[in-house]
Amino acid sequence: MTGVTVRLAAEADCGAIFGLIVALARFEGLLPAVQVTEAEIRRDGFGPNHKFECLLAESETAGRVSAVGLALFYPTYSTFAGRSSLYLEDLVVVEPARRLGVGRKLLAQMAAIAAARDIHRIDLSVLHWNPARAFYEALGAAKIEGWLPYRLQGEALRRLAEEV
Amino acid sequence: MTGVTVRLAAEADCGAIFGLIVALARFEGLLPAVQVTEAEIRRDGFGPNHKFECLLAESETAGRVSAVGLALFYPTYSTFAGRSSLYLEDLVVVEPARRLGVGRKLLAQMAAIAAARDIHRIDLSVLHWNPARAFYEALGAAKIEGWLPYRLQGEALRRLAEEV
Repeated sequence: MTGVTVRLAAEADCGAIFGLIVALARFEGLLPAVQVTEAEIRRDGFGPNHKFECLLAESETAGRVSAVGLALFYPTYSTFAGRSSLYLEDLVVVEPARRLGVGRKLLAQMAAIAAARDIHRIDLSVLHWNPARAFYEALGAAKIEGWLPYRLQGEALRRLAEEV
Repeated sequence: MTGVTVRLAAEADCGAIFGLIVALARFEGLLPAVQVTEAEIRRDGFGPNHKFECLLAESETAGRVSAVGLALFYPTYSTFAGRSSLYLEDLVVVEPARRLGVGRKLLAQMAAIAAARDIHRIDLSVLHWNPARAFYEALGAAKIEGWLPYRLQGEALRRLAEEV
């Protein structure tokens, strides 16, 4: 595997993006959790009012280019700071391409995109047991202390919606 | 104060939205943290490719309608679940209008918007000492266990961007 390059994904890459998501889910034993479809990725990532952007890492092996990783992100908004950060929703590097700096290349490209847009933060969440914490910390990311994530869903959300 | 109503904010409400943000920041002693401007709120909330949406709560006192609260949110994206949640960036209720159910009305409207878009989660973050935790828990929101928020910013982010 040589010459890993990173570029913004285009609509023609939806199949490769979906393939990487499915490969990750299979690796994690979470295939049933994949509810997204390739058509939704096309609609939501490449339509006129897209909800996310995606960086794709590709490598060439024996003259054949294949997708080996992706970084999927979207902008967040802060009432105090405005367009304040890019949120890294997922970073995927396929198993044969790990420990080769692909994740770092993806994050570096994302950092460059942030800088070009005058955005000065990349935010993300990591499961507490995930070894990727060491990777993010090596890049200089720091745990944000004091904030607790909450989620409102299911029956509670349905009941609340009915109050309108 | 009677008849609190909630509606989606329009471009003409940018002044009221900015006023509520500044009032909150002043109340919290965080006025210097407000870097966003009214012009940015107009651009980012009401342009063709808006980054957030905003619900506005208004009440009528002696025939005069005034903005008493807001809920500012944006969609998130999940690689496994697609358009999965609305993220509540900020919920503001001005001091004279607290404990009157305004926050609940804002959240109920947001829940109805989520339902109409086939979105089944509202996500948010709360500071661990914030009494608003009890409010969210009373609505049925639950703390998400196991995920740690990380942030990459400042010199570390600048250095990373230079690797491209």
